[in-house]
Amino acid sequence: MKIYKIPEATVMRLSVYSRYLFQLLDEDVKTVSSDEVARGVGVSSAQVRKDLAYFGEFGTRGVGYNVEDLYSQLMKILGLNQRWNIIIVGAGKLGSAFALYQGFIDRGFSIKAILDIDENRIGQELDGVEIEPLELLNNRVKEHKVDIGVITVPAVAAQDVTDKLVAAGIKAILNFSPSILKVPADVVLRNVDLSVNLEVLSFNLAFNN
Amino acid sequence: MKIYKIPEATVMRLSVYSRYLFQLLDEDVKTVSSDEVARGVGVSSAQVRKDLAYFGEFGTRGVGYNVEDLYSQLMKILGLNQRWNIIIVGAGKLGSAFALYQGFIDRGFSIKAILDIDENRIGQELDGVEIEPLELLNNRVKEHKVDIGVITVPAVAAQDVTDKLVAAGIKAILNFSPSILKVPADVVLRNVDLSVNLEVLSFNLAFNN
Repeated sequence: MKIYKIPEATVMRLSVYSRYLFQLLDEDVKTVSSDEVARGVGVSSAQVRKDLAYFGEFGTRGVGYNVEDLYSQLMKILGLNQRWNIIIVGAGKLGSAFALYQGFIDRGFSIKAILDIDENRIGQELDGVEIEPLELLNNRVKEHKVDIGVITVPAVAAQDVTDKLVAAGIKAILNFSPSILKVPADVVLRNVDLSVNLEVLSFNLAFNN
Repeated sequence: MKIYKIPEATVMRLSVYSRYLFQLLDEDVKTVSSDEVARGVGVSSAQVRKDLAYFGEFGTRGVGYNVEDLYSQLMKILGLNQRWNIIIVGAGKLGSAFALYQGFIDRGFSIKAILDIDENRIGQELDGVEIEPLELLNNRVKEHKVDIGVITVPAVAAQDVTDKLVAAGIKAILNFSPSILKVPADVVLRNVDLSVNLEVLSFNLAFNN
């Protein structure tokens, strides 16, 4: 299957569709229409069809989609038919919350290592994973075949940690720090800034009133 | 100032620009060009100019922007020249991390109440705010003039909490649960799904290899 440039918003919706289909599977539903998927997740049915069309033909006209088939196709497209190993750098409040967040475990993500520079945190455990010194970054990435680095360090340290992750061979980074990070073209970077999310809300509140 | 439909990506970049300007202010820099802002935050200078153009004329051709003026204009546009009161519903791992996250306090956001239904959590404190029973939602929203509701409850409870927040008069909701929530047209909803962020990465890793 040749994949052209897929909009990020499509990828995010595929993730949402796959969760909805999982729910249907759980309720033993066998087939579903694009209309039903659309209603179930709150988008238009044209959107559902367009998103799926990037990846070829899934449904049968007049019959709809086979729930199990579509679910497993979407999981495969999202790369969730395999395990992904994660390293967390920064075991502060946000890093701990991320480590303890259970939402992605049943989607195939596994936290293999958690690093910090704070002597008081090193040696403690988060959900069974020991917090270890930052110096072990390269070793742990290689030993655990880590795929994804999660950055939950203060802004000033974020680029340095990014460089270390990249040097260790990491190709995907989820950044929770408010820094604008530079990565080579072959590394996927995704920023999650909690403050920015709040500020989109305050912007809307300020200007709609 | 009449505001037309502003792309969300623009609003998010304004937030990033404002942080960069704050840094410049701190370094006592007086004027800055769109090129410098662009380089500082990692976007094109055309993008900086286009984003700012939504809100009128800021700079002087050939001179650039006055850092202090532009900073205070951006803060005003983002609604950050005022305080915003927050209520957190769900004091589990994610709710606690959010409550303890310091990143948005100096941007004018203030956590006024934290609610939960778990007897073991109620009565505990998070950064000086006591966790109280969910039943107090309506009272606390009114008493503290809460502007923004943050939802960090499990998916199954999220719509119910949303309905309660909306009924209490909340016009902006930040949702961390993986649920697709329904809100009236006059309520701004923003979803932050940690798993979806990871899945955009796994998608890229799976398809670029």
